[in-house]
Amino acid sequence: MTYKFSKRVPQSDTDAVGDILKVAGDPKVMSFAGGLPAPELFPVEQVKKAADKVLDEKGQSALQYGSSQGVPELRDVILKRLKVEGIDTDTDHVMVATGSQQSIDLTGKMFIDEGSTVIVEDPTYLTAIDVFRSYGARFVGVDMDEDGMRMDSLEEALKANPDTRLIYTVPTFQNPTGRTMTLARRKKLVELAEKYDVMILEDNPYGAIRWEGENLPALKSLDKSNHVIYMGTMSKIFAPGLRLGWVVADPKLIKKYTMMKQSADLHTDSFAQYVAAEYFAENDINEHIAAITALYHKREQIMVNAVDKYFPEGVTHSNPEGGMFLWVMVPGVEDSQKLFDAALKRNVAIVPGDPFFGNQTIPGTFRMNYSNTPEDKIEDGVKRLAEAIEEVMADGEK
Amino acid sequence: MTYKFSKRVPQSDTDAVGDILKVAGDPKVMSFAGGLPAPELFPVEQVKKAADKVLDEKGQSALQYGSSQGVPELRDVILKRLKVEGIDTDTDHVMVATGSQQSIDLTGKMFIDEGSTVIVEDPTYLTAIDVFRSYGARFVGVDMDEDGMRMDSLEEALKANPDTRLIYTVPTFQNPTGRTMTLARRKKLVELAEKYDVMILEDNPYGAIRWEGENLPALKSLDKSNHVIYMGTMSKIFAPGLRLGWVVADPKLIKKYTMMKQSADLHTDSFAQYVAAEYFAENDINEHIAAITALYHKREQIMVNAVDKYFPEGVTHSNPEGGMFLWVMVPGVEDSQKLFDAALKRNVAIVPGDPFFGNQTIPGTFRMNYSNTPEDKIEDGVKRLAEAIEEVMADGEK
Repeated sequence: MTYKFSKRVPQSDTDAVGDILKVAGDPKVMSFAGGLPAPELFPVEQVKKAADKVLDEKGQSALQYGSSQGVPELRDVILKRLKVEGIDTDTDHVMVATGSQQSIDLTGKMFIDEGSTVIVEDPTYLTAIDVFRSYGARFVGVDMDEDGMRMDSLEEALKANPDTRLIYTVPTFQNPTGRTMTLARRKKLVELAEKYDVMILEDNPYGAIRWEGENLPALKSLDKSNHVIYMGTMSKIFAPGLRLGWVVADPKLIKKYTMMKQSADLHTDSFAQYVAAEYFAENDINEHIAAITALYHKREQIMVNAVDKYFPEGVTHSNPEGGMFLWVMVPGVEDSQKLFDAALKRNVAIVPGDPFFGNQTIPGTFRMNYSNTPEDKIEDGVKRLAEAIEEVMADGEK
Repeated sequence: MTYKFSKRVPQSDTDAVGDILKVAGDPKVMSFAGGLPAPELFPVEQVKKAADKVLDEKGQSALQYGSSQGVPELRDVILKRLKVEGIDTDTDHVMVATGSQQSIDLTGKMFIDEGSTVIVEDPTYLTAIDVFRSYGARFVGVDMDEDGMRMDSLEEALKANPDTRLIYTVPTFQNPTGRTMTLARRKKLVELAEKYDVMILEDNPYGAIRWEGENLPALKSLDKSNHVIYMGTMSKIFAPGLRLGWVVADPKLIKKYTMMKQSADLHTDSFAQYVAAEYFAENDINEHIAAITALYHKREQIMVNAVDKYFPEGVTHSNPEGGMFLWVMVPGVEDSQKLFDAALKRNVAIVPGDPFFGNQTIPGTFRMNYSNTPEDKIEDGVKRLAEAIEEVMADGEK
């Protein structure tokens, strides 16, 4: 059988990132590659209590088909979380999704036609690139600096691409860089979206995990003209395994999202939705987030200190005020894959930079994750990684 | 803001079926409209035990990100279920999906380009039509009779449409008709798929719920050349709320499905997967299916007896040997919506036939569900429905 695939299916059978994560899953390997939360902080006992209560009190509803827009109890919980981010709205503006990944997928499906332009930060979340590409997107990357996406570059990109359908951004503790967009740029971004009449897809999985600096308002909270679609998730503050995310947009748009979601998976797991709603009702989520933040901060400090101590001269890195990732730039290295290979030889895994770029890559870059490695192991991993970088840099000079 | 949607988004904001189900959800209305399992049979206590055990023994894994292909323990459970249907395979051939709806969505995304032909039974599962249409499908409907899809019509359709990408079929207790494809036709269908080199998407949500006749082999079990993609689900034999389904295909294809699924929602809820695997390990699923089958059979008999007793002369219906649906044909009625309206005036809901057809409809048809209505209420609902039909038939004669 020769399969006649649609244009959306990647021709290659190699899944570069999947292969990296598979290698990184080897117990011999110390992995800074994934983007996994620290599982030791998952509130397993509280989830058990919540699950028992849900099954005792509304077991039949939790196991039955449910609404495509989501369980009302969970949408109420989401409204409270949104308030913390400066978004004051009501349940008509909210749809529950099967994780943020589904929010991205539905957005791609709804807004991108073959050849449509999508503006992304350079670099950006790699699976968003995969999704948008599968719907036929053409990418225009916008430069970043330590203050996030550069607004002068963005305006140039908007002028040059009047057909742009979407600006995709992770404004806070961005994946993969860990960088945060300043307030001035947030205001400017919303202004530009309005001026050029382009939708922004704001992805905010990490925003709650901040140990330094001031909380910044979500783009959605600055948006007066429905140019921002906001996405949130339970994955980094509660439990990614349950696949619970949400989309916030005006009710007209939420109605379309809900129709598209119905086609995609009918609705998100009812049991998981009720369990999450019950967990949030019975526990102090801010206390839990504080515990996560304290642990990740500790790990980030150990990692950054080790990086500053062991990495060769000239190597630079981002300075995250929260979130899960550090972005490293190694001068004089053309092929990021060499950094991965040299690290793996020393049983350390990172994600080389290339898949995070829509088209033009910045060579010699890679992403490190600190949330998922115990404190006492980080320094040793960074040391070995430093040797790998030295080797590749020395090779480059030959 | 004027949204610039992709071609995949339906222009209309009206969701005909959604509206019907909303009306049918009114407590005043007796609904034969939905396709919901009987919630009183959900094994709530056993799920609670399973959830507790999962959280006690592997809570961190159940709440963490997981494999896009699915939890190995659940894939083992699925292999056992597949054996019952004559499909002897291994875990490389299986991917867990977020319900069968996701299997349909991913299949549409992978196989349908703008203008691709999809052959469907006339009528067929309405949300499959929505999904395939969203990817640009052009539908060719094939006539059915009480023995399922007609193979002479199918071969004509295949000859006339050499570019056909997919034949979508629900061979057993079909939705919406309740009809079952005979063994001879199953063999012929697989033969035709091979001859014309077209993929079959076999959707089997109801097959296990049989009270009459012999079990028939799945198309997949007759397929020697990888022309059949098989879809199964937990929704009708366990709990639809958990959104657990599976795709069975050759490993090369499963690899593509897994890549596409990763883009769609990363993976299916880990907790739900572990809970289902645990439930199946600790309980006799065949006993549970027998209880479901006995109840639905009782309800079906009451409904069919009442239909035969009260519906006007000339009205015909299918004779399901299992599953959840009855298909009714009313002679002389041009507009199925009139049947819905007349029924609703009497506080009874059905689904009018039109949305189940890819293009040309059969007028005067509707679907009735019996699995979700208590035995003591069915006859009264059918009586009122009979009055509605009489009214519409009388109108038609004027």
